[in-house]
Amino acid sequence: MILSALLTSVGINFGLCLLFFTLYSILRKQPGNLYVYAPRLVDKEKSQQQESDDFYLERLLPSAGWVRNAWQLSEDEILSISGLDGLVFTRIFTFSLKVFTVAGVIGISILLPINYFGNQLSDDFGHLPNKSLDSFSISNVNDGSNRLWVHFSAAYIFTGVVCYLLYCEHKYMSAKRIAYFYSSKPQPHQFTILVRSIPSSSGRNLSETVESFFTEYHPSTYLSHSMVHRTSKIQDLINDADKLYRKLGCMKSNNHSQQNFRRDGFLGLIGRKVNLLDHYEKKLEDLEDNVRMEQNLLAAEEVPAAFVSFKSRFGAAVALHIQQGVNPTEWVTERAPEPQDVHWAFFSASFIKRWIFKLVVLVASFALIVLFLIPVVIVQGLANLDQLEKWFPFLKGILSLTVVSQVITGYLPSLILQLFLFFVPPIMLTFSAIQGYISRSQIERSACSKMLWFIIWNIFFANVLSGSAFYLVNVFLEPKNIPRVLAEAVPGQASFFISYVVTSGWTNLSSELFRLIPLVCSFWKRIFSGKDGDEFEVPSIPYYNDIPTILFFGLLGITYFFLSPLILPFLLVYFCLGYIIFRNQLLNVYAPKYETAGMFWPIVHNSTIFSLILMHIIAIGIFGLKKLPLASSLIIPLPVLTLIFNAYCQNRFLPLFKAYPTECLIKKDREDLNEAGMTEFYDKLVTAYQDPALRPVQHARSSDRDTSPLLHSTEV
Amino acid sequence: MILSALLTSVGINFGLCLLFFTLYSILRKQPGNLYVYAPRLVDKEKSQQQESDDFYLERLLPSAGWVRNAWQLSEDEILSISGLDGLVFTRIFTFSLKVFTVAGVIGISILLPINYFGNQLSDDFGHLPNKSLDSFSISNVNDGSNRLWVHFSAAYIFTGVVCYLLYCEHKYMSAKRIAYFYSSKPQPHQFTILVRSIPSSSGRNLSETVESFFTEYHPSTYLSHSMVHRTSKIQDLINDADKLYRKLGCMKSNNHSQQNFRRDGFLGLIGRKVNLLDHYEKKLEDLEDNVRMEQNLLAAEEVPAAFVSFKSRFGAAVALHIQQGVNPTEWVTERAPEPQDVHWAFFSASFIKRWIFKLVVLVASFALIVLFLIPVVIVQGLANLDQLEKWFPFLKGILSLTVVSQVITGYLPSLILQLFLFFVPPIMLTFSAIQGYISRSQIERSACSKMLWFIIWNIFFANVLSGSAFYLVNVFLEPKNIPRVLAEAVPGQASFFISYVVTSGWTNLSSELFRLIPLVCSFWKRIFSGKDGDEFEVPSIPYYNDIPTILFFGLLGITYFFLSPLILPFLLVYFCLGYIIFRNQLLNVYAPKYETAGMFWPIVHNSTIFSLILMHIIAIGIFGLKKLPLASSLIIPLPVLTLIFNAYCQNRFLPLFKAYPTECLIKKDREDLNEAGMTEFYDKLVTAYQDPALRPVQHARSSDRDTSPLLHSTEV
Repeated sequence: MILSALLTSVGINFGLCLLFFTLYSILRKQPGNLYVYAPRLVDKEKSQQQESDDFYLERLLPSAGWVRNAWQLSEDEILSISGLDGLVFTRIFTFSLKVFTVAGVIGISILLPINYFGNQLSDDFGHLPNKSLDSFSISNVNDGSNRLWVHFSAAYIFTGVVCYLLYCEHKYMSAKRIAYFYSSKPQPHQFTILVRSIPSSSGRNLSETVESFFTEYHPSTYLSHSMVHRTSKIQDLINDADKLYRKLGCMKSNNHSQQNFRRDGFLGLIGRKVNLLDHYEKKLEDLEDNVRMEQNLLAAEEVPAAFVSFKSRFGAAVALHIQQGVNPTEWVTERAPEPQDVHWAFFSASFIKRWIFKLVVLVASFALIVLFLIPVVIVQGLANLDQLEKWFPFLKGILSLTVVSQVITGYLPSLILQLFLFFVPPIMLTFSAIQGYISRSQIERSACSKMLWFIIWNIFFANVLSGSAFYLVNVFLEPKNIPRVLAEAVPGQASFFISYVVTSGWTNLSSELFRLIPLVCSFWKRIFSGKDGDEFEVPSIPYYNDIPTILFFGLLGITYFFLSPLILPFLLVYFCLGYIIFRNQLLNVYAPKYETAGMFWPIVHNSTIFSLILMHIIAIGIFGLKKLPLASSLIIPLPVLTLIFNAYCQNRFLPLFKAYPTECLIKKDREDLNEAGMTEFYDKLVTAYQDPALRPVQHARSSDRDTSPLLHSTEV
Repeated sequence: MILSALLTSVGINFGLCLLFFTLYSILRKQPGNLYVYAPRLVDKEKSQQQESDDFYLERLLPSAGWVRNAWQLSEDEILSISGLDGLVFTRIFTFSLKVFTVAGVIGISILLPINYFGNQLSDDFGHLPNKSLDSFSISNVNDGSNRLWVHFSAAYIFTGVVCYLLYCEHKYMSAKRIAYFYSSKPQPHQFTILVRSIPSSSGRNLSETVESFFTEYHPSTYLSHSMVHRTSKIQDLINDADKLYRKLGCMKSNNHSQQNFRRDGFLGLIGRKVNLLDHYEKKLEDLEDNVRMEQNLLAAEEVPAAFVSFKSRFGAAVALHIQQGVNPTEWVTERAPEPQDVHWAFFSASFIKRWIFKLVVLVASFALIVLFLIPVVIVQGLANLDQLEKWFPFLKGILSLTVVSQVITGYLPSLILQLFLFFVPPIMLTFSAIQGYISRSQIERSACSKMLWFIIWNIFFANVLSGSAFYLVNVFLEPKNIPRVLAEAVPGQASFFISYVVTSGWTNLSSELFRLIPLVCSFWKRIFSGKDGDEFEVPSIPYYNDIPTILFFGLLGITYFFLSPLILPFLLVYFCLGYIIFRNQLLNVYAPKYETAGMFWPIVHNSTIFSLILMHIIAIGIFGLKKLPLASSLIIPLPVLTLIFNAYCQNRFLPLFKAYPTECLIKKDREDLNEAGMTEFYDKLVTAYQDPALRPVQHARSSDRDTSPLLHSTEV
């Protein structure tokens, strides 16, 4: 790729972004789009909707007020809006901005000139615009040149800076986590643990076994427990009843016209005329009777798992951290998630079963990540024109047109790839759910790691090594060759990844801001049902999809920092845009569904360390290829030091992300003693972890929707 | 090696063993050797010594009574004599006997005939005695022969049997561990934890900080604490005083003759005549004054570490398992060892320091293990005759004698190697001590693992691959080639390892029984000082040296089981002899210095799993070489299944080896409530973890040796 082509691409994409931003700034001011662009705010203050319904000219003028709002958002506001997870999310951007500002200064002012004035590639096309992008990369530096020592020093300095920033950030995050804990109100999950693999004892049911075990061994702290039941069948019935109830609600709110009557015979055309309203209400009543019957029947069908609540946080921690039963595969304890975060659907019980599921899922994820290349390769083979003509002879005429053939060979593979990629996050989510996690937050965190590996493997390594899957796997079976192979392949892909940042990165961000799909859906609904926002739900930010993408751009920046520093300005633009856009989205669009109190941070840390090590491995190979073996050997301590730094961080900070220390727990427990509402809280705690499917249902003959217990089943 | 040569070697070694056994059975009956062959018994009942001083003829006749005694020893007796560690040690033999009986039956009755009737090697020397040992190995089976499927099935069946036995044994050991805990009396280490990295707070000394922290956060369970002090200087002084005191004791017990007087001038030849006794007593008094002064001075020099005792076992467990301070690198808790097991010498304090030491030691151990080959190679180069003649020309005459040259080339390298090997266990022990372990038992356990790796690498891999160190390292950098390389090399070394079992293995055992070095020492002492057993100490069994050796023979048996089953009968003999001899030694010789309650078992488990995986890797290579690629692929699930089995065992049993569960702790604590002596125990607990160097000293003017607190400093 030559420089002018890159600049054209940058120009086009920049223009597109500007267009999207302008459109956004206009569309967001239309009251009809409130449900698309500010669902969180709408949910918060329902009254606002009426105010802004008047038309005024400003609504049609683009403005940058939203940028200012997003910019002015303070950390405390983010904390109150999106919790600690939201804060972690925005800190990824500030961290990346710090890292790549340093990298950019070093890269553009020192490394880029050195690369440019090398002669290795000697593509003297004369003018700057015609220069290949490769002449800005390390490949252009002469072999064995002493200038490479500048790159060597840059690698050391940059690693030092990144590690220092990582340390500060980790320290800051763990301090925030503790502060968050201190400032939190008593919450059910702080007092509760999940106990699985409860052994069955003869003559007693599981609930009695739990009761007797904990009153025996934790007499002073045990409060109550709620057993987990197998409720998927009831849940289905309840969902049916729910749907029917909503339908009824709709019908009631419309006027009682003819359309509510229908004949009860074949296809509603013959037979007795019946009042549809009565008909549905009767059906709903039947359904609810069914649910109640099932609830009574299933109450006996207990799963050997229970949520056990304690009178103090420390009591819960004691039961959590110390092995309970003599057999370590029984009475397995686990931190309880927040009640609304529990994933009730999959409560596989026995220790072995869960263990096997976990193993199977790990293998399946690994297979999906590694073998995803195969369909890609096949698709690329299909897009081969000769092949296509042979298989579908009737296409010959069309394919001979240059435009068509270009579109097919150029866009079809990447289109199909994008289509495939679209399905990967849900698959990963399903995998993580099967793995046996009991809360949505854990599932999303696990899916986040899986997605990260998927993207790194299938976008970075697949493009860099650009061979068949088998070749890729082969490389990693001969670890000795990895540096050489990577050093040969990675610099060559610099221009691809620069344009990847500009096209895919920037576009992703503007589409995040523009929310095309929700916009179209909302538009559709308004046209066809005349209403919007009726069954509206505030979306939650899909961390499992967004964090890996952002981290991948960080990986690109770190690995290409000294290979091809030209990528850095574009990355800086990406992170600046992302910083503003995601703050805006957190403010207006997303509301958190759960609070992990910053548990996503270790993923960010690990990914950054991995990126650094990858950079070092490539550096070892590059200096070897560039005939500077001394530099190649002298760089070896760098990954070792980085790994030691990582191990230190794991020791110093990770325990705080796993559990709260005695000091905090006891302090909070002491505070509670002076709190007035604790008895009330304990009363609520007893029923907090009841399966929503087992709560009493009563829709029929009650039109008071807001007090229906069913729809508030996830609240505590 | 041909069969007759092997048989000769077996005959010679068997004869040697018999000779040793006969000598042992005579020597052990001589009353003078009681301190060598039955120190544990002597220590137990001092009176026995007088009884057997009469001479009777039977004392000169060899007898096998000791074998019967060792055989009849029941597990409960071993438990009471040597604790659970001794039981684990003997269970290694019973486990190995079970494994190799199965292996022997399969190997000798099925695999050996198949190997023997193959034609691949076709060395038709006619008679059986001239057959090469290789014709009994898998190398002799024809390439691509379907008979190899028998070997294939044998690998699967054998792995299954070993895993089943491992499972049973692990289950048995963990049950024993729990039973041992239930039956134990209240012991200080059950109620105590070690806290390190105590943060210093201004205005308070460390002891006050500890006091206030634990009364604040563990008010109901905290009992007391004792700080750790830096005492190496005092310990040196005390050792000096101790020596002087013993010398005085000796002098007093001799008659007050002229020799107790000496002139106080130059070399004792001129000057005033002084009473040596008075002189030494004065010196001792001075020393002890010095010690007391240092003790007072150093009392302030606290190390930020303390032993914190609790009122209940559960209280100690709670403080142990839950992170205490907000900063995870402060208030680091650790299980306290038994008071007599504390390794006071090395109490490096800060978190970072210990962490760096650990890292350095790991690197050093790794380097020692891997690079130990280099001196060996150099030594072998030195033993090369031409080289030697070139360097030391004056040796030419002697070296031309065949006998001398044979001795030098044949024995010198292995002699030097043995000399090197002699130093390795102490070095490993020192390494483990530096690593920051705080008890002798932990140090020995860590040294045990290090020795195991050392032996496996330097005896198994060095002999199998028999190349230079660099070649060895190279192989492991290309993991894809490992099975092929091993499969080519391992079967060829079968005859070497068979003779290794016969020579090194059997000899080791008889020298263990015969205790040559203590015998010579004791003999020496009796001749020159006329006394023995004066400062006599019951030895403890060096698990860190013995367990790796035994496990290594297990590894040989498992890897060679299907390659060359001829090794199995000799191994069975080894384990039978070991079973008897070590039981005898446990009964008569060794007394345990500490009790880890079976913590050595996981090392045995891991080593067995490693041996199995190694066997599978070799099998993959062998079937590939033997042109049976299907079998080679079908064996791949075997290591995977073995690893899954191992992971299951880790989940199922390992937690029990790390900590006792709530159930046990609470039950034992409840038992204590009914016990009478608990207040007394608590009183003792307060001072149990005082550094012996800080206890009051008083030797001077007190000839009552048995009540001297100094010599009983390690008792509680």
